[in-house]
Amino acid sequence: MYWRRVRSFVIIGQSAVASDDFLLHDFAGTSGRLDVLARCVRAALLFSHGVRRDACVYLVLLGGPRAPRVVRFQGAVAKFVRPDERNLSVQLKKVLAYGDDAEITGFVEVRAGISVAKGSIDAVLADLAGATPFVLEEGAPDVREVPAAELANAAFFMGDHHGWDAACRKRLAEIGARPIGVGPVSLHTEDVVTLVSNELDRREPPPA
Amino acid sequence: MYWRRVRSFVIIGQSAVASDDFLLHDFAGTSGRLDVLARCVRAALLFSHGVRRDACVYLVLLGGPRAPRVVRFQGAVAKFVRPDERNLSVQLKKVLAYGDDAEITGFVEVRAGISVAKGSIDAVLADLAGATPFVLEEGAPDVREVPAAELANAAFFMGDHHGWDAACRKRLAEIGARPIGVGPVSLHTEDVVTLVSNELDRREPPPA
Repeated sequence: MYWRRVRSFVIIGQSAVASDDFLLHDFAGTSGRLDVLARCVRAALLFSHGVRRDACVYLVLLGGPRAPRVVRFQGAVAKFVRPDERNLSVQLKKVLAYGDDAEITGFVEVRAGISVAKGSIDAVLADLAGATPFVLEEGAPDVREVPAAELANAAFFMGDHHGWDAACRKRLAEIGARPIGVGPVSLHTEDVVTLVSNELDRREPPPA
Repeated sequence: MYWRRVRSFVIIGQSAVASDDFLLHDFAGTSGRLDVLARCVRAALLFSHGVRRDACVYLVLLGGPRAPRVVRFQGAVAKFVRPDERNLSVQLKKVLAYGDDAEITGFVEVRAGISVAKGSIDAVLADLAGATPFVLEEGAPDVREVPAAELANAAFFMGDHHGWDAACRKRLAEIGARPIGVGPVSLHTEDVVTLVSNELDRREPPPA
């Protein structure tokens, strides 16, 4: 039952550009902080000398003229994803250069295991059918206290350094996303991904 | 008693260059994987919109002709440290360009809160006087089980993607470093830093 074990991370980038209009040598400075989301890809998908085949990451890009778009990384089939930001920014630049939005229906795989879709959080929800939604919030009940069974096929929604906008917050409430937290300090989103992944690993180590 | 609360992370880079002989646009490819250590600096020192004033990071650089050298980041006084690899690589390049080794005695502050020293793990141990040493190892007892009092003034030694060499392992055994672990999966070193930091945060949240 492979698909029961998938863990999905959905990162909402309020200003992250949905196009390839950024400079590789100034990724953080020119991409609406897409670098923040790129680092979450590493945290979710990679471990020491390997790719988490059971992980999936969605980057919801709400910045720039081509927004909204979603980039999806599937650990099960991803190739050539390395942990350094240079590699991640190159991959994102290639994927975000893809086609006209008129040509895109659902998720289109542009690179091995990396796909792009038009739309915002609803494009992700359509793709996530059946996953139990959680939303990471400061001060919410501790992820360590959530029963293992409820985490078996979970999707974790996270804001970036801007936090949540009203539309996303409303949509997550509508789907009944449960607030959970990871401790007393307000952390970078990639650290939150790492902490949730570790908690899932402790419940059920990923397949070798 | 500020200094009782300091948390120190010591990352051993078996191949990471101890000089500024690397390319900013190919940091991961030309620095002996100093990028792996740079990412640990972010994990240890930064949280959402702030610097952990109670954290200190030592990068032990064992690669290249100027090795061994140590770069120390002190959260208490660090400035201009940002989370992206570009910024971290620029900071490291400037610090590692510093002077002749003949001029360096102890730790020399080259940038605000960023210092360099000659030497390897012993240069770190001399600077850490009094800290309780722990060494991160796979399969070791869980950090979650370590009593809070023992973590009050701790130094956590971690390998990079190459793991440990015999000399470091012997030195850590001599000082009585206690093996601890963070779960069932072999993770990137920066994720290990994040997990240990979170466990410390849960025992005693850092000062505002």
